[in-house]
Amino acid sequence: MIKHKHGGDVYRHRDCLDFSANLNPLGTPESVRAAIRESADHIAQYPEVGSVTLREKIAEYEGVGTEEIICGNGAAELIFTLCRAVKPKKALVPAPTFAEYGQALSGMGCELEYYMLTEHNGFVLDDSYLDVLHKGLDMAFLCNPNNPTGLLIPHSLLKKILEKCRHLGILLVIDECFLDFVKEPEAYTLKQSLSGFRNLFILKAFTKRYAMAGVRLGYGLCSDVRLMEQMELNVQPWNISTMAQAAGIQALKEKDYVEKGRQLVFEESAWMKDEMTKMGYKVFASQANYIFFKGPEELYDLCLRKRILIRDCSNYPGLSRGYYRVAVKKHEENIKLMEALEGGRLWQKQ
Amino acid sequence: MIKHKHGGDVYRHRDCLDFSANLNPLGTPESVRAAIRESADHIAQYPEVGSVTLREKIAEYEGVGTEEIICGNGAAELIFTLCRAVKPKKALVPAPTFAEYGQALSGMGCELEYYMLTEHNGFVLDDSYLDVLHKGLDMAFLCNPNNPTGLLIPHSLLKKILEKCRHLGILLVIDECFLDFVKEPEAYTLKQSLSGFRNLFILKAFTKRYAMAGVRLGYGLCSDVRLMEQMELNVQPWNISTMAQAAGIQALKEKDYVEKGRQLVFEESAWMKDEMTKMGYKVFASQANYIFFKGPEELYDLCLRKRILIRDCSNYPGLSRGYYRVAVKKHEENIKLMEALEGGRLWQKQ
Repeated sequence: MIKHKHGGDVYRHRDCLDFSANLNPLGTPESVRAAIRESADHIAQYPEVGSVTLREKIAEYEGVGTEEIICGNGAAELIFTLCRAVKPKKALVPAPTFAEYGQALSGMGCELEYYMLTEHNGFVLDDSYLDVLHKGLDMAFLCNPNNPTGLLIPHSLLKKILEKCRHLGILLVIDECFLDFVKEPEAYTLKQSLSGFRNLFILKAFTKRYAMAGVRLGYGLCSDVRLMEQMELNVQPWNISTMAQAAGIQALKEKDYVEKGRQLVFEESAWMKDEMTKMGYKVFASQANYIFFKGPEELYDLCLRKRILIRDCSNYPGLSRGYYRVAVKKHEENIKLMEALEGGRLWQKQ
Repeated sequence: MIKHKHGGDVYRHRDCLDFSANLNPLGTPESVRAAIRESADHIAQYPEVGSVTLREKIAEYEGVGTEEIICGNGAAELIFTLCRAVKPKKALVPAPTFAEYGQALSGMGCELEYYMLTEHNGFVLDDSYLDVLHKGLDMAFLCNPNNPTGLLIPHSLLKKILEKCRHLGILLVIDECFLDFVKEPEAYTLKQSLSGFRNLFILKAFTKRYAMAGVRLGYGLCSDVRLMEQMELNVQPWNISTMAQAAGIQALKEKDYVEKGRQLVFEESAWMKDEMTKMGYKVFASQANYIFFKGPEELYDLCLRKRILIRDCSNYPGLSRGYYRVAVKKHEENIKLMEALEGGRLWQKQ
């Protein structure tokens, strides 16, 4: 087992325009940066254990109880902590999807079963998923919209999955970290099912919604109080830094900023997908703030030469060379990406 | 198993002078706070995976190889990650000591054996420790100087322990987080044994040395490359925030500040111990930046009424009510503590 390589490695490619990480295209709100600057005067003390103040604000924002929220040093930490609390023997993950589910599970010796999303099927998760659920599974992870494909799972199917998981004693983990950037999040979230389903765990992050990946702040929602207590026992008491707590409290106030970012994503995504399709790329129907597509095997290097970093998806289980993911950014940035992709298309035709 | 309560809870006692957390009495260096303020402009991106730049600076500071360093979201995270990487069945911890060793170990189902430090023995760890080491142990944790007693383990004994642990196949974890504040750290550290002993893991933190507990930054030193790789697999790739990496790189330059803090601790600690002894408190011979002592059972509440927060040590395994720990702070602050302790003494005499 080796560690998975992710996008966003701007440190090895310092002068590149980064399309490999999928963040709010407007960048970090100035008020959040100000909150971090101000927090610098309060870093001598330990951060607030249990992030109580922050969790109260998240509870208001999400309309759930404070006791149904757990904060993490990024949503990624929560994935690891959750797996340790559950101690699953067998778990189901889709492929391709975000690599950290599998990493966290197999790191603790859990056996993995895969639900393969195939190009033949348009990478769509359909009713056949219900058939692969069985009593031997302890956990099932789903990402909605999925990373890297950007495809959503219909709500009616999700509800059936959740019901069946409860019936079979499976904890269903839904990663909704990118759901803020789809057109109707409320039509796809499972949040309303939280109180009725103790076997539901929802992952959310500040990272993408407010473009604050460097801060490390995510949260989980779950109504199973005993599971939440088990998670607390499997992580250090001071896992959320003073700066992250301050940044999170401020970020939640930025509702207009989020809406502005969403509208920009809708416009730009439609334009980019159109342009890319015209260029002859095979573009999948992503509904998130990133676009999944197929192109020539050399495209990553061709873009890099133009100082543009895209996500080569060949290391996702279930994918091979020639699959890529690009973030939806501001128009002037997206134009530069389109120019690079145009170069890739011409290169392919040679 | 319930979560251990620690000191430093300034959030429930906002207007108190905090003697319950043991930090450099000079507070956070201004340059470190400035580094955090500046980092606020770079938080949109993910932090550097593997904290490569920071680890290179720590390598220079410690005089070890970059590959022998692993960074954590505070030293506390490293304790949990290390335990997960080793997956010990049985481990030895002293009592009393820092609670997170036991918390991390038992959280993953490891059986604990205790080496009891007793008041009868002045809480000193002596040669009898060698006798409790046996082949069935996978790990042994030691804290040097110990928390909460402040007592050091003589170097000659530590070397014998390390040798015997190697012979028996035990990973020896030495927590040197408070070693910066003893008079001759170089006479007590096991750092020189790193390259010769793959069964040695040393824990260090920025928290105390630079008074930056809110930032969350610690590191581990070990020459066992395979163990380090196992640890990397058991933690998310972005565990050190952008702000923490910037703060750490800056902090390592603050050598004069650390020395000034040390000298202040030496002077103040001697004065405080003397005053407390004169008042009739039983004061143990702490050599760290905190003082461990015995007093009336009501002392915590009496101090709190005077808006002074001390560490009630009654929840440490091996201790009972009436044991306390106080940080060594600046003279004007220490005077206020002495006034409160004087009140405690008079109260006891009533």
